[in-house]
Amino acid sequence: MGNSFGQLFSITTWGESHGPAVGVVIDGCPPGLPITADEIQVELDRRRPGQSDIVTPRKEEDRVEILSGVFEGKTTGTPVALLVKNGDQRPGAYDEMKDKFRPSHADFTYQAKFGRRDHRGGGRSSARETVGRVAAGAIAKKILGASVEIRAFLTQVHDIAVPAEALVDFPTLAAVEATPVRCPHPATAAAMIERIKAVRSEGDSVGGVIECRVRGVPVGLGEPVFDRLEADLAKAMLSLPATKGFEIGSGFAGAQLRGSQHNDAFENRGGEIHTITNRSGGIQGGISNGEEIVFRVAFKPTATILQLQATVDVTGTPTELMGRGRHDPCVVPRAVPIVEAMTALVLVDHWLRQSAQCGTFEF
Amino acid sequence: MGNSFGQLFSITTWGESHGPAVGVVIDGCPPGLPITADEIQVELDRRRPGQSDIVTPRKEEDRVEILSGVFEGKTTGTPVALLVKNGDQRPGAYDEMKDKFRPSHADFTYQAKFGRRDHRGGGRSSARETVGRVAAGAIAKKILGASVEIRAFLTQVHDIAVPAEALVDFPTLAAVEATPVRCPHPATAAAMIERIKAVRSEGDSVGGVIECRVRGVPVGLGEPVFDRLEADLAKAMLSLPATKGFEIGSGFAGAQLRGSQHNDAFENRGGEIHTITNRSGGIQGGISNGEEIVFRVAFKPTATILQLQATVDVTGTPTELMGRGRHDPCVVPRAVPIVEAMTALVLVDHWLRQSAQCGTFEF
Amino acid sequence: MGNSFGQLFSITTWGESHGPAVGVVIDGCPPGLPITADEIQVELDRRRPGQSDIVTPRKEEDRVEILSGVFEGKTTGTPVALLVKNGDQRPGAYDEMKDKFRPSHADFTYQAKFGRRDHRGGGRSSARETVGRVAAGAIAKKILGASVEIRAFLTQVHDIAVPAEALVDFPTLAAVEATPVRCPHPATAAAMIERIKAVRSEGDSVGGVIECRVRGVPVGLGEPVFDRLEADLAKAMLSLPATKGFEIGSGFAGAQLRGSQHNDAFENRGGEIHTITNRSGGIQGGISNGEEIVFRVAFKPTATILQLQATVDVTGTPTELMGRGRHDPCVVPRAVPIVEAMTALVLVDHWLRQSAQCGTFEF
Amino acid sequence: MGNSFGQLFSITTWGESHGPAVGVVIDGCPPGLPITADEIQVELDRRRPGQSDIVTPRKEEDRVEILSGVFEGKTTGTPVALLVKNGDQRPGAYDEMKDKFRPSHADFTYQAKFGRRDHRGGGRSSARETVGRVAAGAIAKKILGASVEIRAFLTQVHDIAVPAEALVDFPTLAAVEATPVRCPHPATAAAMIERIKAVRSEGDSVGGVIECRVRGVPVGLGEPVFDRLEADLAKAMLSLPATKGFEIGSGFAGAQLRGSQHNDAFENRGGEIHTITNRSGGIQGGISNGEEIVFRVAFKPTATILQLQATVDVTGTPTELMGRGRHDPCVVPRAVPIVEAMTALVLVDHWLRQSAQCGTFEF
Repeated sequence: MGNSFGQLFSITTWGESHGPAVGVVIDGCPPGLPITADEIQVELDRRRPGQSDIVTPRKEEDRVEILSGVFEGKTTGTPVALLVKNGDQRPGAYDEMKDKFRPSHADFTYQAKFGRRDHRGGGRSSARETVGRVAAGAIAKKILGASVEIRAFLTQVHDIAVPAEALVDFPTLAAVEATPVRCPHPATAAAMIERIKAVRSEGDSVGGVIECRVRGVPVGLGEPVFDRLEADLAKAMLSLPATKGFEIGSGFAGAQLRGSQHNDAFENRGGEIHTITNRSGGIQGGISNGEEIVFRVAFKPTATILQLQATVDVTGTPTELMGRGRHDPCVVPRAVPIVEAMTALVLVDHWLRQSAQCGTFEF
Repeated sequence: MGNSFGQLFSITTWGESHGPAVGVVIDGCPPGLPITADEIQVELDRRRPGQSDIVTPRKEEDRVEILSGVFEGKTTGTPVALLVKNGDQRPGAYDEMKDKFRPSHADFTYQAKFGRRDHRGGGRSSARETVGRVAAGAIAKKILGASVEIRAFLTQVHDIAVPAEALVDFPTLAAVEATPVRCPHPATAAAMIERIKAVRSEGDSVGGVIECRVRGVPVGLGEPVFDRLEADLAKAMLSLPATKGFEIGSGFAGAQLRGSQHNDAFENRGGEIHTITNRSGGIQGGISNGEEIVFRVAFKPTATILQLQATVDVTGTPTELMGRGRHDPCVVPRAVPIVEAMTALVLVDHWLRQSAQCGTFEF
Repeated sequence: MGNSFGQLFSITTWGESHGPAVGVVIDGCPPGLPITADEIQVELDRRRPGQSDIVTPRKEEDRVEILSGVFEGKTTGTPVALLVKNGDQRPGAYDEMKDKFRPSHADFTYQAKFGRRDHRGGGRSSARETVGRVAAGAIAKKILGASVEIRAFLTQVHDIAVPAEALVDFPTLAAVEATPVRCPHPATAAAMIERIKAVRSEGDSVGGVIECRVRGVPVGLGEPVFDRLEADLAKAMLSLPATKGFEIGSGFAGAQLRGSQHNDAFENRGGEIHTITNRSGGIQGGISNGEEIVFRVAFKPTATILQLQATVDVTGTPTELMGRGRHDPCVVPRAVPIVEAMTALVLVDHWLRQSAQCGTFEF
Repeated sequence: MGNSFGQLFSITTWGESHGPAVGVVIDGCPPGLPITADEIQVELDRRRPGQSDIVTPRKEEDRVEILSGVFEGKTTGTPVALLVKNGDQRPGAYDEMKDKFRPSHADFTYQAKFGRRDHRGGGRSSARETVGRVAAGAIAKKILGASVEIRAFLTQVHDIAVPAEALVDFPTLAAVEATPVRCPHPATAAAMIERIKAVRSEGDSVGGVIECRVRGVPVGLGEPVFDRLEADLAKAMLSLPATKGFEIGSGFAGAQLRGSQHNDAFENRGGEIHTITNRSGGIQGGISNGEEIVFRVAFKPTATILQLQATVDVTGTPTELMGRGRHDPCVVPRAVPIVEAMTALVLVDHWLRQSAQCGTFEF
């Protein structure tokens, strides 16, 4: 259980890293949306392994097939099933993992929880599971349309961070995609790439931070008290592999401010109510206020490293494990489309909920 | 919608700050649990306003009544309804809020979302809503029993933080409750109190950080891929008023480490598999691994300040607002029992889910 | 668990027959609805015991209190909590039930399931639990407004049934409420009353059938493949105490027809598509088709009878039990407002769902 | 939305009649269950078209593929994705349905609800959707094991019914499968077959009734007040295409009895508490009581008939439609495995829920 996300625009993902396929079923997709496999493919290609020389060389075409819910090029309102076949499987590469627990992976906890596990490439705990999320997110993005822009990008790799003053403007997609690290600040991007290559050459890995900004979100999305918009965004992000933290607006730094410094004063800007500053990050009281939504997600360094590590086997006997297999020295660049996908899923779901409660009946 | 939390141990809260009462209904409580109103009261008293001279002077007895689901001192397995009457209401104190939006409060977003709002004391967006969470959390704690210890405490107020090396041991409840700021490090606690008083004297407010540790959690709680244990904890925490961030284990600092520094090696300790370090924060792959669960939550400074602030009224006309009413210059100390309550709710819910899927049928 | 109903307009009921109160929390109520306690009271009064000489003489004022979610006479979009205090409790009257299982009641199954039970008056299994449903249903009816009419009424008591040809027209509320049995066919109603009195004088009870018709439902409500409108109606009805069957449109009799007799041909009536006949009962493929929704619900005879019955006690020892306490010789008349309430809850919930998926985004 | 069923053992089906495939994702399947595609195939073969000369001649191999959640022959606790490719598609056969609404089909309501529809063979509203239910149900049956026997069978076709006194014993699977109508009473089965053939020769269709009995269900399954076991069974059955009614135990006939005739007295049978009679149908107060669960489901005659019918087209213009395409003159025999599948799904789901709430914690 726990493999569905969303109340009204609900997705259920399935599949293991080295099984025949991975996929997703979307229930609640509005009817009439024009969508093609090629449009979904664009986002999958952004996530795909083997895109550049700083990510895993695993070769996957990741061709998506639409199996239901689309007829004559438009959604019908019935479940949309999407499937991506797994291609470049080398299950034999994982034989050692059958009996040994890789440090900071999910091997031990899956084994303990379920009493068994598909050990090949992490099985269900592999980030390959996010294929379904990205495919569903592509549809969610299409639903949101051009008026809502979701832009995620790297602000930090290891201890290399974009200077605070450098990212005032909303980054363009082109700027983000200009480099394989997906950092729209060229100088920082160059340093990040260098660092990732250096670390990879040592068989090591590094973490990083993604910032996500969204503009064009209408006022009113979010369902307090539990399903606040930031609460569902936090859940969405912490449901991603390798994430360790989430902050919105002022975040942890906000805890160091005084109320008189932190409060976002309202003003009338061209007939609309806006806040002058945006330490709230676009959400107040759990509900979007029409300002840019801004949040950050922390990713730990990739657990797989090509170094000898101490561990235990399934019987608890101490042993050692030499990292093998293809992997990313830094997963964060490939996580950018995934963060965007999850954001889109949260927004569509909340949009439908807001529309239902507040837009259906008039009294 | 959005006022329920939990899949199997599910709570639904209701009530506004200045309505007749606030309350909660718990569905899914296991039968046979001995519980009294006095036991629930203990946690409510920790949350209650007016406990000390650094919190709001609002006088609330906050006496809980058990209206259903308990018979002859034990739960029956049917819904447990808990109610707390609102006492010290001064709705007139909020007349000005009827037409003016308080900066960084939920006034504007509630008005925009619902087209109306109960403006008295924030209505539903008031932290008074957390009474129901704490009451339900008291029952969840009782279910978990003595073997699971949940301990939240302040590690930071404004820029005053507990020294990193000072909190190695699991803090005792007595150490946390020894001071009104609920920081178990006496020197830091003293500085925090001084700072809060200084800020209050200026009509200002400050934020802070709570750390929460849990020991005794069994291996196996958490439902990947979406309902990972840390994802549900993140949602629980970001669903609390005034929260701006969540991090688990190494958190944002972990993004600055290499994999070789960050990985938690396994060892056999007395016949049990444990990790030597705990940068994972007690959760791996979304599932508890038996180590201490450690997470931190950032709180912004209280939005209500006793200073003149620029804002707009409901028509969008610029105006000014002078903060009034009783409030906390720093809400973080009173949030400690709330963080513990939400943690207990998440743990019981996941325990039931794990038990259902993995403990019901044997093949 | 299992005490909530509805996805978007969601109710959670709580309370036992002889506890301090019973109640309901509604989450998802649209904001801006004008509603008063008096309007809810109208429906509760229809359900209330002691209305006439053919129902239980238990005296209950059943005064409803609105505890949240309504401000200045209108709903705010936050949870609506409704509470009704239990008044005429005679818990001592139920001492014998503590140890003995009443035949065809829920005593045995509650005891077996939960390991304990509040035996007083059936505790949670009492039909008193439906107070919360009726109160919530009153709000649902108000939401639906005057254009949707829900009319339930008795068509059968014991073997006395309304003649098939007698109920062509949609019955008026006045006709239904004209007699205490709530059968709009006067001659049948008179016979029903006589039968109920006769049966009561023997300390016995009888069952019956309720028909419910709804007109004014828009085309398009219902969410196949599982949440078909008739499936959710069936669940709603079978969730009521004492129900044994549900049929829609042609129902069980429809199984005896040929397709050529059963199919509802379409026609154009004044520019709108309608069916000439209505054997479908207003729902096709799980979705409302704009015709009158027609379904029937079977109720068993009241299990409590004032006769000596063989049974066992909690240890399994054979014993006898003499029915005592106040009860209805026929519960069906009082079930009429309950059937209407559940119908209204289903319709509002589906209306919100339809609006969300098909009315939010335009492409 | 509405394409998922079950709280803990949750299935989501997808797929249209003439799309590339149909399928199901099961979330919450307990780990360690030995299961093969062949075992699932057994149930699919019972549902498959073309089994005999009284059902549709559509040729479908209906070979199921397991795409995830099973490793080395056993379930892993992760989602089980099952897929069945659609084979014998003749979409051209349905061109006329593009613009005309077939009477008593879902053409009109799907069009009205979603604004469009996949008209080929009914699209999503086709009974082909039940392939996923039967596949998932096969796994649910395997989980329940040999100690729980679910046996559905026909008791009525048109006006031909099994004599009331003929079915005292629990029918064997062999007796049910002995004839293509799946009626275990040979004389009635023969008459049913004759009737179906006669009706088919006239291009007409007939309905019928399925009875389902379950033995071996433990005491305690069912979650009042809304998720009563019979309420979820009713929903499950009314969610099937062509169903018009559900009754449990005494059903509609029970409404004609007195309480003194209807009550099921308890007795001690070999140290266990049982009821002497079973008018309750194995469920009391919404909870299984350990007796045989007995319910019946009414199916209307197949809407597709090979006769000329009056109808309207999508513009509302009156027209005529000549039934074409392959169809079943009586769908009821093929519905037997589907009824069993839904029953198994409900039972497993409730078993997990009961285990979670009442079997996890001890106090």
